[in-house]
Amino acid sequence: MTQTPSGAFHGRPSGRAVDALRAIRLEPGYAKHAEGSCLARFGDTHVLCTATIEDRVPPWLKGGGKGWVTAEYGMLPRSTHTRTDREAARGKQSGRTQEIQRLIGRSLRAVTDLAILGERQIRIDCDVIQADGGTRTAAITGSWVALHHALATLVRFGAVKSMPLTDHVAAISCGLYRGEPVLDLDYAEDSDCQADANFVLTGRGGIVEIQATAETDPFEESEFDALLKLARKGIGELTVLQKAAVE
Amino acid sequence: MTQTPSGAFHGRPSGRAVDALRAIRLEPGYAKHAEGSCLARFGDTHVLCTATIEDRVPPWLKGGGKGWVTAEYGMLPRSTHTRTDREAARGKQSGRTQEIQRLIGRSLRAVTDLAILGERQIRIDCDVIQADGGTRTAAITGSWVALHHALATLVRFGAVKSMPLTDHVAAISCGLYRGEPVLDLDYAEDSDCQADANFVLTGRGGIVEIQATAETDPFEESEFDALLKLARKGIGELTVLQKAAVE
Amino acid sequence: MTQTPSGAFHGRPSGRAVDALRAIRLEPGYAKHAEGSCLARFGDTHVLCTATIEDRVPPWLKGGGKGWVTAEYGMLPRSTHTRTDREAARGKQSGRTQEIQRLIGRSLRAVTDLAILGERQIRIDCDVIQADGGTRTAAITGSWVALHHALATLVRFGAVKSMPLTDHVAAISCGLYRGEPVLDLDYAEDSDCQADANFVLTGRGGIVEIQATAETDPFEESEFDALLKLARKGIGELTVLQKAAVE
Amino acid sequence: MTQTPSGAFHGRPSGRAVDALRAIRLEPGYAKHAEGSCLARFGDTHVLCTATIEDRVPPWLKGGGKGWVTAEYGMLPRSTHTRTDREAARGKQSGRTQEIQRLIGRSLRAVTDLAILGERQIRIDCDVIQADGGTRTAAITGSWVALHHALATLVRFGAVKSMPLTDHVAAISCGLYRGEPVLDLDYAEDSDCQADANFVLTGRGGIVEIQATAETDPFEESEFDALLKLARKGIGELTVLQKAAVE
Amino acid sequence: MTQTPSGAFHGRPSGRAVDALRAIRLEPGYAKHAEGSCLARFGDTHVLCTATIEDRVPPWLKGGGKGWVTAEYGMLPRSTHTRTDREAARGKQSGRTQEIQRLIGRSLRAVTDLAILGERQIRIDCDVIQADGGTRTAAITGSWVALHHALATLVRFGAVKSMPLTDHVAAISCGLYRGEPVLDLDYAEDSDCQADANFVLTGRGGIVEIQATAETDPFEESEFDALLKLARKGIGELTVLQKAAVE
Amino acid sequence: MTQTPSGAFHGRPSGRAVDALRAIRLEPGYAKHAEGSCLARFGDTHVLCTATIEDRVPPWLKGGGKGWVTAEYGMLPRSTHTRTDREAARGKQSGRTQEIQRLIGRSLRAVTDLAILGERQIRIDCDVIQADGGTRTAAITGSWVALHHALATLVRFGAVKSMPLTDHVAAISCGLYRGEPVLDLDYAEDSDCQADANFVLTGRGGIVEIQATAETDPFEESEFDALLKLARKGIGELTVLQKAAVE
Repeated sequence: MTQTPSGAFHGRPSGRAVDALRAIRLEPGYAKHAEGSCLARFGDTHVLCTATIEDRVPPWLKGGGKGWVTAEYGMLPRSTHTRTDREAARGKQSGRTQEIQRLIGRSLRAVTDLAILGERQIRIDCDVIQADGGTRTAAITGSWVALHHALATLVRFGAVKSMPLTDHVAAISCGLYRGEPVLDLDYAEDSDCQADANFVLTGRGGIVEIQATAETDPFEESEFDALLKLARKGIGELTVLQKAAVE
Repeated sequence: MTQTPSGAFHGRPSGRAVDALRAIRLEPGYAKHAEGSCLARFGDTHVLCTATIEDRVPPWLKGGGKGWVTAEYGMLPRSTHTRTDREAARGKQSGRTQEIQRLIGRSLRAVTDLAILGERQIRIDCDVIQADGGTRTAAITGSWVALHHALATLVRFGAVKSMPLTDHVAAISCGLYRGEPVLDLDYAEDSDCQADANFVLTGRGGIVEIQATAETDPFEESEFDALLKLARKGIGELTVLQKAAVE
Repeated sequence: MTQTPSGAFHGRPSGRAVDALRAIRLEPGYAKHAEGSCLARFGDTHVLCTATIEDRVPPWLKGGGKGWVTAEYGMLPRSTHTRTDREAARGKQSGRTQEIQRLIGRSLRAVTDLAILGERQIRIDCDVIQADGGTRTAAITGSWVALHHALATLVRFGAVKSMPLTDHVAAISCGLYRGEPVLDLDYAEDSDCQADANFVLTGRGGIVEIQATAETDPFEESEFDALLKLARKGIGELTVLQKAAVE
Repeated sequence: MTQTPSGAFHGRPSGRAVDALRAIRLEPGYAKHAEGSCLARFGDTHVLCTATIEDRVPPWLKGGGKGWVTAEYGMLPRSTHTRTDREAARGKQSGRTQEIQRLIGRSLRAVTDLAILGERQIRIDCDVIQADGGTRTAAITGSWVALHHALATLVRFGAVKSMPLTDHVAAISCGLYRGEPVLDLDYAEDSDCQADANFVLTGRGGIVEIQATAETDPFEESEFDALLKLARKGIGELTVLQKAAVE
Repeated sequence: MTQTPSGAFHGRPSGRAVDALRAIRLEPGYAKHAEGSCLARFGDTHVLCTATIEDRVPPWLKGGGKGWVTAEYGMLPRSTHTRTDREAARGKQSGRTQEIQRLIGRSLRAVTDLAILGERQIRIDCDVIQADGGTRTAAITGSWVALHHALATLVRFGAVKSMPLTDHVAAISCGLYRGEPVLDLDYAEDSDCQADANFVLTGRGGIVEIQATAETDPFEESEFDALLKLARKGIGELTVLQKAAVE
Repeated sequence: MTQTPSGAFHGRPSGRAVDALRAIRLEPGYAKHAEGSCLARFGDTHVLCTATIEDRVPPWLKGGGKGWVTAEYGMLPRSTHTRTDREAARGKQSGRTQEIQRLIGRSLRAVTDLAILGERQIRIDCDVIQADGGTRTAAITGSWVALHHALATLVRFGAVKSMPLTDHVAAISCGLYRGEPVLDLDYAEDSDCQADANFVLTGRGGIVEIQATAETDPFEESEFDALLKLARKGIGELTVLQKAAVE
C-alpha cells in the first residue's frame, strides 16, 4: 500500500552502524532433554531451537532410504510487545507461523545430505522466548547448531557413517529504513521500513532462499543489490559464530 | 536437500524458447455475479479470479478512512494430476495455501492507494480450475484485472473519486532447469528444477516481491540475476495483456 | 413458516414454459487431469464434475470384493450472487454441503453395480463454478457422465470386465411457483416458491430419491403428483443428453 | 447399489401388522428445567425433546419482528447397538446429524406463525436416549409437544397474544420391506429394506416434507403411493396422541 | 476471589440434615443395548452410565496383556437450569468436561485389576440427563455398577477368569455452606458455598481421589477434616446401594 | 489400577531428604515486554510466568465493577524427555493442559480482591521451558510473583488504589514414594509413586486447593495427613522466596 516515506535517515534507532549486526549469542546445549539445542540471541530476540531424532520418516519417504528434516515454530504469547493469542488456544496455527516453519525446514534440508542421514527424521522446534524482530533468521541460524549437535551424536554412536551436513546455513534480514539499506532489522526498524528482505545463504555463499517484500512503495533493483551485499557480510559473521558453537 | 542434477539441458519439455511465456489468455468478466472477474490461463493453468466489494474493513482499520485488499486461494480437488484433498473437508487450509493468499494480497495492495479507496474492502478469490505450474503467478496477474474492473465500477458510480490503482502488478516464475535459466515454468519443469523463483513486479518495473528458493543445491548470484532478467521480459508482456483486458 | 403467497402466476421470470428445462449443456472431458469429467450447464448454473479412480475402498468395505462411489461438493465463493464464505477458511463444511454430497453419492450408487466394480472407489467432485439454482441436480446429472467416462476407462483397460452401470441416473428440481407447478427452478423461482422438490430418477423411470419440502404453507398430494409428472418429462430429456455425452 | 433382494415377505420381525405403529408414548414435562419437554417413545426408540425460549433471534432476522424455531439433534454414544463415537469428542457433527436437525427445524417452522411469535427464538433439542429406528420421526413428533408447551407458557404469561401454532406436525417412516410396504420401520426392518421414506405431514394432512430413498434397487411410483397412504394412517394416529399430550 | 460470606446457616435449602444424602436410586440395566448400564439418580441429578466392551486397547498398551478403563462425560444441553451449548456443535469439549471424564476413568481404574481384565478396554459413557449438582459423583457411583455388569458378563462367558474388580468405588461431594459442613451438595448449595470438595473412596475406605477447592476464602484444615468425615458416612451408604444394584 | 509396589524405600533418586525442596529460584522481570514476569525454577523444572494487563473483562463480568485473573499453560514441545506434540499443531489443548490452567487461575483468584482490581483482567501465561516434574506447582508459585509485579505497577500509576492481593499463594506436590511421604516430587519420583498430591496454600496457611490421587493402590487417611504436613513446610519456604522476589 502506498504510504508517505517515514522521513529522512538520521541513523538507526539502536545507534548501530548500517552494516552492524546486533549482539549475537549462540548458546548450545541450552535444553537438557533434547538431542541438540541452541538458544539463539539476536539482541533482544531470543529463540530456543531444539532438535529431536525420530526413527521414522513421513509416509511418502518410507522405504526410499532417505531421511527428512522438518521444523515447527511458535511464539510464547508474551514474547511480543503486546500479548499475542496462544495458537493452541485458538486451535490453529496462523499463516505466518506456517510460512516460517516451512522456510526453516527448507533451509536446513538445503545443506543436509538426506541419503547419508538414512531413514530417520530430525524434527526442529523453534520457540520464540522473546521477540524484537528477526525471529525467523535467529531460528534458522540457531537451528543449524541444534541440528549439528543431533547429527554429531548420530555419527558418534555409529548410527550414521559420516556427518550428513554439506555446509553451514544461516539467515539474516536486511531492509530499506528511511531510504537507507541496513543490516539485521530490529523491531523498531522492521515496523517502519519500506522494504524487508530475508536472505538464507550457505557458508560458501550459495543462495538458499531470498524473500524480499516491498512494505510501502515498490523498490529498485539497485536497492535490492545493496541489501544482498549487506546480507553476505552478516551471514559471514554468523557462520563464524556457528563454528564456535559446535566446536 | 542435495540431489543429483537432472542431467544436461536439451531444450524445454514444451519446446518453448528459454525466454518464452506459455500461451496467455486473460478473459475478463468470466463470472456473472462478481463485481470484477478474470479467467487467467497460463497454458494449461487456469485460475478464476473474482473481486467482491465489501462495505466494511477489518476491525483494525475501522475509522481510519483507509480501505483494504485481501485474497483467498483454493484449488479444485481434481485441478491437479492426482487428486488433492479438499481443504474444506480436511477442515483447514494448508501452509502453502496460506502463503499464496498472503502473497496475492500483499502484491495487489502494493499498487492500490488505500486512502483513495476509502473504508471498504475488496476481497479477491483465486480458484484454480486446472493446474499445470505457476498458479500463484496466474492468480496475481489475473487478480489485477478483476480488481481493476471492480474499482472501475466504484469510480463509475461515484463511490470513489479517482482510480485507486497506482500501477499494474503482475507475476511470473523463473527457474534453473537442467542448468539453464528459463521463463514461466510449467509443471514438468517445476517438479524437476534446481531453483524456482517467483517475481512480482509493477508495470514501471518496481520490485514488489521476490521469492527465490533452491530446490536442490544452493545457486549463484549470477544465476539469480539471469532469472530476474527473464522475469522482467515476461512481466513486460503480461502488462500488455492486462492493458488489453481492461480496455 | 407461514407466509403470504407471493401473488398470482403471470408466467416465469425467464419466460420459459412451465414444463421447459433451461438450456442444458453437458460438456464431457472438460478437466484435463481427471479420469472422467463433465461441465454441466443448466442455464447459468455451471457445475464441474470430475471422477477420480482410487485403488482402495473405505475401511468398512475392505476384503468384501465390492467397490464404492462417493462424492464431495463445493461452491466457489463468488459463484453466488453475494459472496459465500469459503468453507476451507471457515474450517468446516455446512450442513447443506454435507446433505448435497451425501445425496450425490447415494444417487450414483443406485445405478452402479459395486460387485462388478470390485475393490476400488470412484470419488466424484462436484464444484459449482457459477450458481443460479439447481446446483445439486446439475451435479448429479453431470456426475453420471463423469462416472461413465471413468468406468469406461477401467473397462477399456481390462481392470473391470463389464460396464458396472445398470442405468442412467439424472435429477431435476420442480416447484410450486405462484401456485403453478414448474420444471427446473432457477434462482429467481427457487427463492420465491411455495414448495421445492428434487427428484432423482433412473433412465427407465425408477425412483431413486425424492426430496420435497414446503417452503411456505404445506401443500397437497395433487400438487405433489403434478411435480413428479413434470420431473419425469425433464429427466427423460436429460437422459437423452447424457447418452449423447458418452457416445 | 444393486443388491440381491432379501427374500420373500413372511411377516415383520416384530410381528406387527404392515400398517401398525409401534407402541407410542408421548410423555410431556419429562425435563424439569426446560420450558417445554416431551419424552417420545416409538417402541424401543426413546427421544428426549426439550424447548428453550430465547429472547433473541439469529442476526439475519433482527429488527424484522419475526421469530425463529431451530433444532439440534444428538445421540447418546451407547443409544445404538454398537457404540457410536461421541460427536463432541470427534469435534464435529456428522452429515447425518446436520441433515436431521435441519429437517426438524423446517418441520416445526412449517406450522409456526413466526410473526405472532415475535422476535424470540425457540430452540429445540432432540437427544436420542435409545435408538431402534425412526429417531428423526420420534424427534419431530415429540418436539411438537415440547414446542406447544413452551409456546403455551408464553401465551399464558401474556408475552405472546395468541398461540403461534397453525396446526399439528408429526412424522413417520415407511418402507418397502421384502417387497411389502410397511409402516413405522424399526431397526431390524430399516437395516434390511429396499426403500425408506420419511413423511412429515400436518394435522390437516398437508405435506411438509417427503424424503424417499431407494436403498437397493430404484422403486416404482405405485410403491411410493402405497408408502404415502400408510404414512397418512400413521400420522393420523400420532396427531391424536399429540392432542392428548398437550391437554 | 474474596467475597462476603453468604450469611449465617439456617438449615439447608432442601431441609435435609447436614449429613443426609439426597434420595439415591441406582437403576441397573437402564440401557437396552449396552453391556452394562445404570441410571444413577442423586435427587434431581440423573446420570445415565453405560459400559461398552471393546476388544482392543489404546496403542500404548498393545501387547502388554493388560486392559484399560476409560470414560467420557457429557451433558444434554437442557439438563441444566439455563441451556448449555451443545459441545458437538461448538466443536470441542470444555475444560470442565475433560476434567470430569479423566476423573471418572482414574477412579474406576483404581479398583480394576487390569491384568485380569486382559487386553480389552471398557469404555464408560456418563451422560447427564438432568443436573442438580453433583453430576460427577453420581457418574462415578453409577459407572461402577455399569462396569460391574459388563465385567460380570465377561466372566460369565469365560472371556475373563475371575472378576477384575478389587473393591467398590463411589464418590460424593461435601462443602462448607454458610459456615457449616454439609454432605452431598445440590445445585442451590453448590452455587453458594465457600468450599467444595469431591471425595472418591473405595468400599474399604481407601482414598482414591480428593479434590477440594476454596470457592471464596481459603478454608482451615479442621474444616477439611469435617468434610472428609461426612464423605466417609455418605460413601458407606452409597456402597450399600451399589451392592444391591449388582445382586 | 492395581500394580505391584515399586519396592522398598532406599532414599530418593536425587539424594534429597524426604522433606527437602529442590533448589528453587524465582527470577522476577525475566521477560522484557510483560507487565510482570517470573522465571520459576524448581530444580530442572523451569516455567516462565508472565502477567498481561487487559483493560476489559470477560463478557459475564461487564458492568459489575469487578476484575478477573485467568491463566493459560503450555509446554514447549521439547521441554519433556521425549518430544510432546505441539498443541497448536494438533489444533487443541489436551485435557491435562486445561485442568492445569483452570487450577492456576482459581489459585490466584483466591488471593486477589477482584473488587479492588476493578474492571480489568490480568492474563497469566505459564510456559514450561523445561520439565522435570511439578510444572503446575512451579507455575502457581511463579505466577504469584508475576501477578504481584503487574498489580504493583497498576498501584504505582494510580490505576488501582491499593494492592489487590490479600495474601501469598504457592503450591507444592507431595507423594508416597516407595511407601514414604516425600516433598516436591521430581520426574523420577512422579513417574513411580503410589500417590501424588498437589497442595495450594496461602501465606497464612489457608487451604486453597487440594488434589490428591492414588496412582496405584488407594491410600490411607494417615498417609494423606503426612503429605499435608510436608506441604505446609514446603509452602512456608516458598513464601519466603516469593517475598524476596517482590521486594
